[in-house]
Amino acid sequence: MRTLYHLWLSPFCRTVRIALAEKNVEVKLQSENIWNRRDGFLALNPAGEVPVLVEVDGTAISTASVICEYLDETYSDPPLLGGNPTQRAETRRLIQWFDIKFNHEVTQNLLGEKMMKQFLGQGEPDSSAIRAGYSNFRYHLDYISYLVDRRNWLAGDDLSYADLTAAAHLSSLDYIGDVEWEKYKGVKTWYARIKSRPSFRSILSDHIPGYQPPKHYTDLDF
Amino acid sequence: MRTLYHLWLSPFCRTVRIALAEKNVEVKLQSENIWNRRDGFLALNPAGEVPVLVEVDGTAISTASVICEYLDETYSDPPLLGGNPTQRAETRRLIQWFDIKFNHEVTQNLLGEKMMKQFLGQGEPDSSAIRAGYSNFRYHLDYISYLVDRRNWLAGDDLSYADLTAAAHLSSLDYIGDVEWEKYKGVKTWYARIKSRPSFRSILSDHIPGYQPPKHYTDLDF
Repeated sequence: MRTLYHLWLSPFCRTVRIALAEKNVEVKLQSENIWNRRDGFLALNPAGEVPVLVEVDGTAISTASVICEYLDETYSDPPLLGGNPTQRAETRRLIQWFDIKFNHEVTQNLLGEKMMKQFLGQGEPDSSAIRAGYSNFRYHLDYISYLVDRRNWLAGDDLSYADLTAAAHLSSLDYIGDVEWEKYKGVKTWYARIKSRPSFRSILSDHIPGYQPPKHYTDLDF
Repeated sequence: MRTLYHLWLSPFCRTVRIALAEKNVEVKLQSENIWNRRDGFLALNPAGEVPVLVEVDGTAISTASVICEYLDETYSDPPLLGGNPTQRAETRRLIQWFDIKFNHEVTQNLLGEKMMKQFLGQGEPDSSAIRAGYSNFRYHLDYISYLVDRRNWLAGDDLSYADLTAAAHLSSLDYIGDVEWEKYKGVKTWYARIKSRPSFRSILSDHIPGYQPPKHYTDLDF
């Protein structure tokens, strides 16, 4: 059976889980405690990070954006990158925007400080990082608003990995109650469309012991 | 004329410059002082970062790895990603390894602290960051050694964007004299092969006023 090594709240893993579900590709989820740096796992991905997709023949593909490219090449229905080189460049630009810039400026400062640090016993959250995270988050929500005001989906007319990547980050932050949905109606409407897709169901049923999501988290009509 | 907005020592820009030269795609280089956050430039790339490639028809493609994908789709000779989905995944994994992990652990700590901070008037270099940079660099040079001991090029049999990306980062660090070539003979041999390619000439002729590279920097037989 195809296996995806993952961690529950990782937006990178969530992107891949949604992509696999959009493409109707079955996969067994295997939680990997990457901080243990298990030899067998490092052999699959020397970076020691999730997600890693292992195909039935043992082929291991790691890194969210790399797995997404691989999935579009091997399970092409539906295509999630775009129909021509310029459109694909726009999708890829936004994937990198969320996985590098948004992750560094928002996800790490909020999810990283408020949850992962405590979970990994790395000390108290850094309040200045959290403040920076909230401040950056508003700027990014403005940018998502700008995009959804002008386009059907984030990268253009069609649903793409850009939507999946952005929604994965937002869903992880929503789990800890950090998204000010009421202030960003356009973003909320776009997110509600993604959230109600069958591909999102598995994400919404995640439950991290000891951490209860807010009530609206699983509500499709929030 | 096709234009590449860039900064001289940026490894991200260097990767794209080498790729364009490998593919014999002519381009006008335009240095962009991104810290000025010029409106016209932000319209090309809202992230405000280089490289940005602007085609003759005005199409703007930003982010090094995204430009590389675009170039392989539009100027396919020679292909620099790999011949099948698994090979391309390996090339892409290594691009991300160097552009995210290596950049964060090494390039930022050395080039960022020792040169860019001073250049941008952001205060004194952080000596603990520099120490961490050197320590991480050894671990990464071990990993590059591991790869070149087992493969013809970093991602496999053929030259790929993985080599270009890694060599671009190393070349920027070599400009400030930070690569211990003599301790890593295999890496040195691999780098000498890339460095002697015609596509690398423009990189080696870069000269940053006030910062002299070490003597071996431009020497093909160093």
